[in-house]
Amino acid sequence: MTRPLHLNLYINGCGHHAAAWRHPLSSVEQLGSIAYFEGLAQTAERGLFDAVFFADGQAIGPVADGPGGFLEPITALAAMSRATTHIGLVTTVSSTFYTPFHAARLLASLDHISDGRVGWNVVTSMWDAEARNHGLERMPTHAERYDRADEFVQVVLALWDSWADEALHYDRAGRFADPAGVRSIDHVGEFFRVDGPLTVPRPPQGNPVLFQAGASDPGRALAARRAEAVYAVAADLPSAQEYYRDLKHRILQTGRQADAVPILPGLVTYVGSTEAEALAKQRELDELLPAADSLRQLAQFIGQDCSAWELDDPMPSLVPLGEFTGPQGRYATILQICSTVAGHAGGRLSVRQLLGRLAAGGGHATMVGTPEQIADEMIRWVDERGADGFNLMPPTLPTGVDDFVDHVVPVLQQRGVFRRQYAGRTLRSHLGLARPVGRAPLLPATRG
Amino acid sequence: MTRPLHLNLYINGCGHHAAAWRHPLSSVEQLGSIAYFEGLAQTAERGLFDAVFFADGQAIGPVADGPGGFLEPITALAAMSRATTHIGLVTTVSSTFYTPFHAARLLASLDHISDGRVGWNVVTSMWDAEARNHGLERMPTHAERYDRADEFVQVVLALWDSWADEALHYDRAGRFADPAGVRSIDHVGEFFRVDGPLTVPRPPQGNPVLFQAGASDPGRALAARRAEAVYAVAADLPSAQEYYRDLKHRILQTGRQADAVPILPGLVTYVGSTEAEALAKQRELDELLPAADSLRQLAQFIGQDCSAWELDDPMPSLVPLGEFTGPQGRYATILQICSTVAGHAGGRLSVRQLLGRLAAGGGHATMVGTPEQIADEMIRWVDERGADGFNLMPPTLPTGVDDFVDHVVPVLQQRGVFRRQYAGRTLRSHLGLARPVGRAPLLPATRG
Repeated sequence: MTRPLHLNLYINGCGHHAAAWRHPLSSVEQLGSIAYFEGLAQTAERGLFDAVFFADGQAIGPVADGPGGFLEPITALAAMSRATTHIGLVTTVSSTFYTPFHAARLLASLDHISDGRVGWNVVTSMWDAEARNHGLERMPTHAERYDRADEFVQVVLALWDSWADEALHYDRAGRFADPAGVRSIDHVGEFFRVDGPLTVPRPPQGNPVLFQAGASDPGRALAARRAEAVYAVAADLPSAQEYYRDLKHRILQTGRQADAVPILPGLVTYVGSTEAEALAKQRELDELLPAADSLRQLAQFIGQDCSAWELDDPMPSLVPLGEFTGPQGRYATILQICSTVAGHAGGRLSVRQLLGRLAAGGGHATMVGTPEQIADEMIRWVDERGADGFNLMPPTLPTGVDDFVDHVVPVLQQRGVFRRQYAGRTLRSHLGLARPVGRAPLLPATRG
Repeated sequence: MTRPLHLNLYINGCGHHAAAWRHPLSSVEQLGSIAYFEGLAQTAERGLFDAVFFADGQAIGPVADGPGGFLEPITALAAMSRATTHIGLVTTVSSTFYTPFHAARLLASLDHISDGRVGWNVVTSMWDAEARNHGLERMPTHAERYDRADEFVQVVLALWDSWADEALHYDRAGRFADPAGVRSIDHVGEFFRVDGPLTVPRPPQGNPVLFQAGASDPGRALAARRAEAVYAVAADLPSAQEYYRDLKHRILQTGRQADAVPILPGLVTYVGSTEAEALAKQRELDELLPAADSLRQLAQFIGQDCSAWELDDPMPSLVPLGEFTGPQGRYATILQICSTVAGHAGGRLSVRQLLGRLAAGGGHATMVGTPEQIADEMIRWVDERGADGFNLMPPTLPTGVDDFVDHVVPVLQQRGVFRRQYAGRTLRSHLGLARPVGRAPLLPATRG
């Protein structure tokens, strides 16, 4: 019996394919319009998804190449919460630049506004360009950022617990709140000094759901200690299984229930009524990539000139990872794609197909086919313990999520692995997570 | 000919009277509900107000005594923007704890989400309790906070201008945006180092409208240099005129148009169909104040034991300001209220009436009477150059703003001093403010 799976929509501008905005029917003119993002959340809610998710960064890339995130996610989700009623609302908030009081307060307020639908993807920022927007010359070291993140999460959790659930009395002839139920946290640590209490009463969910996406060793350690749900990156099932096994093991080692922490790998899908139609959709997008730019970028990744390569030729053979002297991570991804992904009609992958895969989700899983093919492959990942669900990364938006909701979700429901209605109204409920107990008031609550 | 006046609704929990939450019909149970605040904004919009406004602080007071602000204002306003179509949305954001990049980004995003209806009330935080929630032992000095605020505003304005209006091309066969139109700001100052550009394209209003409320000398200087609209505190018309004259003079001295900067004193109103009914509303609230607590607080303000005073006796005479050895500001306000406000039936102010005035708006103007009486007094303040409009502080919410919108606004319209419909859809339009020009792109915009 397959476990029920979780679905998350990762919202990214016009879609996760770098050329999506170039499509004639793309949503590129609507990226500053909140109505567009409300519509995406409504579509995901129609598909009974657990949540929508915004990644976030503190600096923009090259603006000529394509859109970045325009709207700040917390403000966008506050609006989107009022256009929806059930779906979870997850955002990345970096632990590197906010004070923990600001982060705790913004997320707690959003959890009240949405009646308990908020998730927080805890990250550490990576880029010097982000540091230089917030007063630093460069990023702190990786280790220092993770130490800070760990203390940051600890402070935020304590602030969310600084009001007891029973603190509010509303006793018109007596006390508004029980002072014993609203307490300072008096945190003094390596990075932060925070008295508390928070200005916001305890969030409806106790605390917004903690997501983590760490792949590095300190990232996995933080996820194992703190995460209530995990976003993962895996190009194929074996990689997914390896990550899944390792993280669930680490979670158990911290004394937590590993089953209670869903792991959701990213998933790019091209859905067609036939496999040929799905492949044609993928090819249409890949052909929108500016060829010269893409080949120039590929040349950097693989350390050789590709400017004369024909896009529709099969990919030339590449030297093994051990013989490659440039940056290893991206090169390993490229080798893996070349060795595991079949080209059109079962032949070798073409240059254009590789560029397309890199341009849409990079190292994330990609499934191309009919609704039944995609649903069955998703179920296989869950059955074979590579995933507890997926973080859907449609190559185009809104069309990619429309396709998935209209065609793949019904198959998942027929297979008995996906809900036919929401059982509750909070993100915790969708994910099967218990509400944290919180701090008890110091004294028994008294009225009047 | 009277100038048209501006109206702003200052939203504060159940109302600005400290005992408002104790009223049997109060909204106290709804303070965590965004629907309540959406309703207030909709009422103010029905009354064609220029804007609603949230004050903000980074620490809570004693929770037994009454409600603080639960929801964080930026998240609340993002939701409220989607429940309204025209009204401006102003929030305090302190320059003391956010990085300017975070503040610029959150406010720019909110200006996009609301289609150009955001105002930013620039403040410096005051209390050590706030500092201790954000990593500091105590507040920086007053002078340092204002120096930081000045540089903070400068950086935020530069970030809002980091995208030219014409930067976005959406050219599917070419460039998403013109790189020459999206530029770093490379700010290096005494307090901040910020490269930019912002991650958000230029806000619809060019920049959200800058409000300021400084009463101290550095506060007035900052307002004169930067503010596009000003919140003021004045207990009576002569104080209002003095502030108005001084600030308009300072604005002229900075080379700006003083007429273009509306000054809006706070205003507490009790509206009744007769004067007696209005006074009864005021008395009903004043009687909800816990007597012993209020007298204990008054004793601190005036430096003498009041515990045996009868609430309905006339206020005893107080020593002149020059002979008072305690803190001067609050004592001066008390003397002013005692000397200028008549008690019921024209007699001396009672102890309870003084406590009620202090509990509702403190040193702000209070008008009690029929819609005609209040409208005429408001018009007198405008005619005699004490105000360009008012920051309405209803003693109770939602009833206090319902009363004002249903009864006072129609009189102001009949008198020809208040709009009968919105002329535009941005806060700048309501306030008669021009859209800032912004930075020109470095190069002429080219397509493709």
